[in-house]
Amino acid sequence: MASGVSFSVSATDGRARTGALVTPRGAIRTPAFMPVGTAATVKAMLPENVRETGADILLGNTYHLMLRPGAERVARLGGLHRFMNWDGPILTDSGGFQVMSLADLRKLTEEGVTFRSHVDGSKHMLSPESSMEIQRLLGSDIVMCFDECPALPAPRERVADSMRLSMRWAARSRDAFGDRPGHALFGIQQGGLEQDLRAESAEALTAIGFDGYAIGGLAVGEGQDAMFGVLDHAPQMLPADRPRYLMGVGKPDDIVGAVRRGVDMFDCVLPSRSGRTGQALTRRGAVNIKNARHADDPRPLDPDCPCPCCRSYSRAYLHHVFKAGEIISSMLMTWHNLHYYQELMQGLRDAIAEERLDAFAQGFERRRAGGDLDPL
Amino acid sequence: MASGVSFSVSATDGRARTGALVTPRGAIRTPAFMPVGTAATVKAMLPENVRETGADILLGNTYHLMLRPGAERVARLGGLHRFMNWDGPILTDSGGFQVMSLADLRKLTEEGVTFRSHVDGSKHMLSPESSMEIQRLLGSDIVMCFDECPALPAPRERVADSMRLSMRWAARSRDAFGDRPGHALFGIQQGGLEQDLRAESAEALTAIGFDGYAIGGLAVGEGQDAMFGVLDHAPQMLPADRPRYLMGVGKPDDIVGAVRRGVDMFDCVLPSRSGRTGQALTRRGAVNIKNARHADDPRPLDPDCPCPCCRSYSRAYLHHVFKAGEIISSMLMTWHNLHYYQELMQGLRDAIAEERLDAFAQGFERRRAGGDLDPL
Repeated sequence: MASGVSFSVSATDGRARTGALVTPRGAIRTPAFMPVGTAATVKAMLPENVRETGADILLGNTYHLMLRPGAERVARLGGLHRFMNWDGPILTDSGGFQVMSLADLRKLTEEGVTFRSHVDGSKHMLSPESSMEIQRLLGSDIVMCFDECPALPAPRERVADSMRLSMRWAARSRDAFGDRPGHALFGIQQGGLEQDLRAESAEALTAIGFDGYAIGGLAVGEGQDAMFGVLDHAPQMLPADRPRYLMGVGKPDDIVGAVRRGVDMFDCVLPSRSGRTGQALTRRGAVNIKNARHADDPRPLDPDCPCPCCRSYSRAYLHHVFKAGEIISSMLMTWHNLHYYQELMQGLRDAIAEERLDAFAQGFERRRAGGDLDPL
Repeated sequence: MASGVSFSVSATDGRARTGALVTPRGAIRTPAFMPVGTAATVKAMLPENVRETGADILLGNTYHLMLRPGAERVARLGGLHRFMNWDGPILTDSGGFQVMSLADLRKLTEEGVTFRSHVDGSKHMLSPESSMEIQRLLGSDIVMCFDECPALPAPRERVADSMRLSMRWAARSRDAFGDRPGHALFGIQQGGLEQDLRAESAEALTAIGFDGYAIGGLAVGEGQDAMFGVLDHAPQMLPADRPRYLMGVGKPDDIVGAVRRGVDMFDCVLPSRSGRTGQALTRRGAVNIKNARHADDPRPLDPDCPCPCCRSYSRAYLHHVFKAGEIISSMLMTWHNLHYYQELMQGLRDAIAEERLDAFAQGFERRRAGGDLDPL
């Protein structure tokens, strides 16, 4: 791996692994969930409180940050860590996925993507080389290769062409990244739902050589069964001594299933976005706080949860502040959801270390299925 | 005063006083600024963080709370303190001012005010008796008499009629409040800008007898000169051994001027509302964070401010998150503003205790006037 960055597996249980990815800015305990800090903030949270939930690392979005406030500006201000007051590791995506889903008038060529900003209409270019430069300016600890992927379902030929373009871009990303001690570069496997294309992609990436490997192009509309179908094979195609990161995933049960299939790292906007829209994620399933039945309920979201939201606030209060459009609703429910996700990751890490992941996963499913006598 | 509630003045400087209003839920150091928690939340703040800014007491709005979530519901859930997770004292207004400014189809009679909710159109009645009952259900520590006042300027006759109605309502409020150990009832002086009407109102209230006295009907469009003109006389019309509360005031310089004229308590939405709209209030005047000149500024809002916003975030960051519409903008800037207000109050209390209020006020004005070499 890059000097100054190391990954070690301390225990396995079936295909699942637990360990740590160590960077100069701190260790990332795996399996790890990375809260998403799109525009240099995990929405509705102070970074010290994100840390308190148990997060070791945040994700930042290159596309958003390059447009506003701009990567050069962030660099002048001392880098993204200082800018957003987070001194732990930061992983940045490459901008490839977001430019294809958010930008206006985008045009894809072998060179890269030209597009207009969704913020102010200004014209921009993203390529493997410019993405590496932007992520360097941001000060990212874990840099992602510039790639491209189709929404699923997509014709096999489209998936194959896209994957091969991404592999050529992966080689250019590797060249452009160069040698940056203390900073890691991850390749991204593509290939949609096609096992042979996934294998071809894994081979191409492994030949180039990366500090870690992401599984990309999932959680784009294919459904959990199809995703797990890919994950039954894809992680094993990637080097066992490097971290495996499933991008943009997912719901709690997606994560449990993916960890069992050998995935080490995750990111998703779900806990923070759900928090803002009034959905709490708990050990006993989802709670829609908008529902009128919560208006007089003195219980917390989850009586067994030690987070600040559950320690001090009733569902009746959360229902009230959500209905009243108060900011504290987003603050408290995001905090709970991020805490729940980190607690889930700690549970998974402990279960793997103690070789009881099957029992953990069964208990997880039983609680979600409403086995509790006091339904939420 | 009501048993279990006491007010003592520990030092004076000119007409200014410092001391404490002690309730069973804690002492309120005076002069005191009360952050406004309209709908059971100080917007964009967790209550423990409001406490950290130095606030001893919050204000809740009866009008908003009676409509949503409802006073009976709050009572069933254990009262407003428990509901909103604030264990310090709470003062509630009577609903009188807000019903006249916010409700639909309101109709004023000797009995009280009927109106329709601005939330859902439901029909309601507020009277001295119902206001006392609602404030009791909320669990308010300091209850305000039900009153009514015109926006200024207003014809003298309208001001006089309104004041006399409020005095009849004050007597009914006193009767309806009864004897509630540990809970205080404050009367509200009215009379607009007319000194003789202010005196008549003060006499009427003093004859009834209250635990504290508010100066109402100001900060309603009359301007600072006119307000200070009233405050040159109004506080001295009220009993010296009871706290004097100037309702709905105000800007930092309003507060400094009012403290010098003998006022002990204040409330205002300005620090929290300004925080949400991108205006920071600092020792050296206001900072409009929306201004493009902050986009590259690595300095905090106020380099001498120890609040969490100024300790860890640049103006460039605050500018970015404001422009991006991120919730953290409201969180950080509200925190700063509330911290600044509480620091101002502590400065006033210390200056009075050390009999150097004139020098403190001069320094306050000099900094605001831009005497600093590094303008904000």
